[in-house]
Amino acid sequence: MAPQRQALLLSSSNCHGYSMLEFAKQEICNILKKNSINELVFIPYAQKDYDSYTAKIKEVIEPWGFTVTGLHSYSNLTERINNAKAIFVGGGNTFLLLKTLYEKNLVQIIRDRVHEGSLIYIGSSAGTNVATKSIHTTNDMPIVYPPTFEAIGIVPFNINPHYIDLVSETHKGETRDQRIYEYLEMADSNPVLGLREGSMLHIDGYKLTIKGIAGGVLFQKTDKKPVVIAPDSDVSFLIEQDKEL
Amino acid sequence: MAPQRQALLLSSSNCHGYSMLEFAKQEICNILKKNSINELVFIPYAQKDYDSYTAKIKEVIEPWGFTVTGLHSYSNLTERINNAKAIFVGGGNTFLLLKTLYEKNLVQIIRDRVHEGSLIYIGSSAGTNVATKSIHTTNDMPIVYPPTFEAIGIVPFNINPHYIDLVSETHKGETRDQRIYEYLEMADSNPVLGLREGSMLHIDGYKLTIKGIAGGVLFQKTDKKPVVIAPDSDVSFLIEQDKEL
Repeated sequence: MAPQRQALLLSSSNCHGYSMLEFAKQEICNILKKNSINELVFIPYAQKDYDSYTAKIKEVIEPWGFTVTGLHSYSNLTERINNAKAIFVGGGNTFLLLKTLYEKNLVQIIRDRVHEGSLIYIGSSAGTNVATKSIHTTNDMPIVYPPTFEAIGIVPFNINPHYIDLVSETHKGETRDQRIYEYLEMADSNPVLGLREGSMLHIDGYKLTIKGIAGGVLFQKTDKKPVVIAPDSDVSFLIEQDKEL
Repeated sequence: MAPQRQALLLSSSNCHGYSMLEFAKQEICNILKKNSINELVFIPYAQKDYDSYTAKIKEVIEPWGFTVTGLHSYSNLTERINNAKAIFVGGGNTFLLLKTLYEKNLVQIIRDRVHEGSLIYIGSSAGTNVATKSIHTTNDMPIVYPPTFEAIGIVPFNINPHYIDLVSETHKGETRDQRIYEYLEMADSNPVLGLREGSMLHIDGYKLTIKGIAGGVLFQKTDKKPVVIAPDSDVSFLIEQDKEL
């Protein structure tokens, strides 16, 4: 059987009651060990200070038995990605991350290598947004203008990370659900998987599973209400269309 | 003295404890009556259903003694704006609003007429965002892709409407202040005036005043902390640069 895309898309790196990435440790270790990978290339472009961001991630992940190096420390970025077996795309600002990935010509090469099954993609928050079809459902502020909102497209739908359905009694801004439904009203919108903090989407070829402790919710054009998805649910149906192509 | 720009930029249309636009009624009536204006052209493009949105605003504002007509009901939009004396740009989604204003070629004509002092601009929420230098500091979800984030530019700085400094103990997404400081770290960023719900910026030539009940906060590159601004404060200093040009 030909190798297939493998990815782990985290809602966030932090989750109430856990240290950084702790809730995802087992899944991150599993996906890397299963593929006999001991080195992770970290992509820090969602934040401004690449060195300190990389150092922070190194401090968390290296004790788990993997080497972490920052992509920004290499002179030839495409060559480094071409030689990598696994990347970790960190959170921060989604607009800044996507713009930088396009500027450095990394979008197509990451897309191609993940789809051919030769590169494992791990992303968190902004790193999860850019892995999906588009960044139309990020919560981030549009601090820079990217050349498009279309993203890497490992999956044919969108994710809303840090999903929360809190409604304020006094604040009159739109709720998260209202914002997502506004998006769904637009032409050519994609389904939106809201991932609560502490949850992640595991992609193994055409098998998609919600992992972690918190679950998620699914928003689709045709549904009037979001559908709650419990942890460990199989959501492979979200990718059925892809399979038929 | 030549006529000068006049505008009223509301943080939101709704404010806890008030009916729709009630907190701003006095200021809206003042600016229109002072200029002997009895007709308001409403721009509903931040929402999807133009008719029902216009009807809602009519219902609130017409009892105050002004006629309200929806811009979308006219066949020649630029002609209608050229003949208008005052516009009200309603809230909704900032990206959708700005994209539609560009598609209908309305950005430049509104900018020119407001700056020459022949058109009064009233905006709320998304309608306030597009009136400023850019929409980089909107809270809205990027549900559509506008041709640029640069906006009408009635003032040379940005506004963050619905400003709130609430920090959640459990939710791990960025706070509003963190998001605004991320923006300020970018090259060519503008100062950001955070307007709390219930407050508005009154622009009368080179005189800028915070009106309403709630005040705001000012974020600047050089300040480490936002500066609190009380209701009725004069913030004309924000436009000093413009004056020198």
